[in-house]
Amino acid sequence: MDKHILTVSREFGSGGRSIGRAVAEQLHIPYYDKEVIRQVAQKTGFDEQFVAENGEYAPGKTTLSYIFKALGRPEALGRADAMDGLSTTDFLWVIQHQVIANLADHGPCVIVGCCSDFILKDRDDCLHTFIHASQQYRAQRILRLYGEGEKSPQQRLADKDGRRRANYKYFTGRDWGRCQNYHLSLDSGTLGEARCAELLASLLTAPGR
Amino acid sequence: MDKHILTVSREFGSGGRSIGRAVAEQLHIPYYDKEVIRQVAQKTGFDEQFVAENGEYAPGKTTLSYIFKALGRPEALGRADAMDGLSTTDFLWVIQHQVIANLADHGPCVIVGCCSDFILKDRDDCLHTFIHASQQYRAQRILRLYGEGEKSPQQRLADKDGRRRANYKYFTGRDWGRCQNYHLSLDSGTLGEARCAELLASLLTAPGR
Repeated sequence: MDKHILTVSREFGSGGRSIGRAVAEQLHIPYYDKEVIRQVAQKTGFDEQFVAENGEYAPGKTTLSYIFKALGRPEALGRADAMDGLSTTDFLWVIQHQVIANLADHGPCVIVGCCSDFILKDRDDCLHTFIHASQQYRAQRILRLYGEGEKSPQQRLADKDGRRRANYKYFTGRDWGRCQNYHLSLDSGTLGEARCAELLASLLTAPGR
Repeated sequence: MDKHILTVSREFGSGGRSIGRAVAEQLHIPYYDKEVIRQVAQKTGFDEQFVAENGEYAPGKTTLSYIFKALGRPEALGRADAMDGLSTTDFLWVIQHQVIANLADHGPCVIVGCCSDFILKDRDDCLHTFIHASQQYRAQRILRLYGEGEKSPQQRLADKDGRRRANYKYFTGRDWGRCQNYHLSLDSGTLGEARCAELLASLLTAPGR
């Protein structure tokens, strides 16, 4: 079946977001990344930063963060309770699921992150991809884009990917970065970001193509 | 750097060999698969079937097989002993390493299996790939190609992939089918074998291109 929707999972610093955005621009289709966070925040009452962090941590590690942040948003906690007593984490996951499924229902698009490959796994019109690169390539890229930080680039990569891996495992039961989860995986450092975008765009059927 | 050599690792029944062969034909470059086995057998004195089986099993599972098969080839065991007392398994690995490195030294080619992605990982001119597909696709494909067997297609897939996974882990220390081991992974069932071959050929620089 033709593929209209691209999901992009990615290692931190691999350029997965830039590649996803380039594909969306080439095909003139919507690109969703922070939009998912924005809509989840809007529907749940939690603030965007909290929703974004929830999407990067496995629940076991965020108990304190949840308590402190949620204290300022009693109405959000109320909404979670109202959904058959779901925990905040599961409540956010249910809404994230709804938001992503709804975006996909609206037609061709690119969705980056948010376990969108798993959430849309039963749709035949999605191309699920994973972008990765060597540690050296990613370290140089994040230094160039985000500058020096308190931690070394290597530590920042390990921290961020470790969180993504744990979060993905918790919500999907699958191993992050396993070829079999995706239709295609690409090493952006070796192939080049422009080539990756071109290749992915060539595999999608967009309006007017 | 330009990529002249393609290595193809693959799930059983995914069509990885057919795809590799198609790429070699499109680019008019040599295709190596059983040739690696043949050369290892020739250099070691073991028979081809034994070498092929050694390449599919992790050593722990093949002790009996080794003993029975090697009994008929004392000169091969002698050669292994002569190499600083290497075990038969390690001796075959050393020779496999030499054979694959030597094939790569001779210029552009396609090499399927034999941990060639790992063996050639430090060369800049190789494109390392992994081909996989859904269990349903692969089960139908092996039934079509190889017919019914004593075991169910699902069991045959699980057995063969389990052996490849264990063997790869033993010799390389890496997890088989992890995106980060390869420059590119493709779901042949979803993308189609012809499309996969075309895509891989487009990423290689062959003589005269």
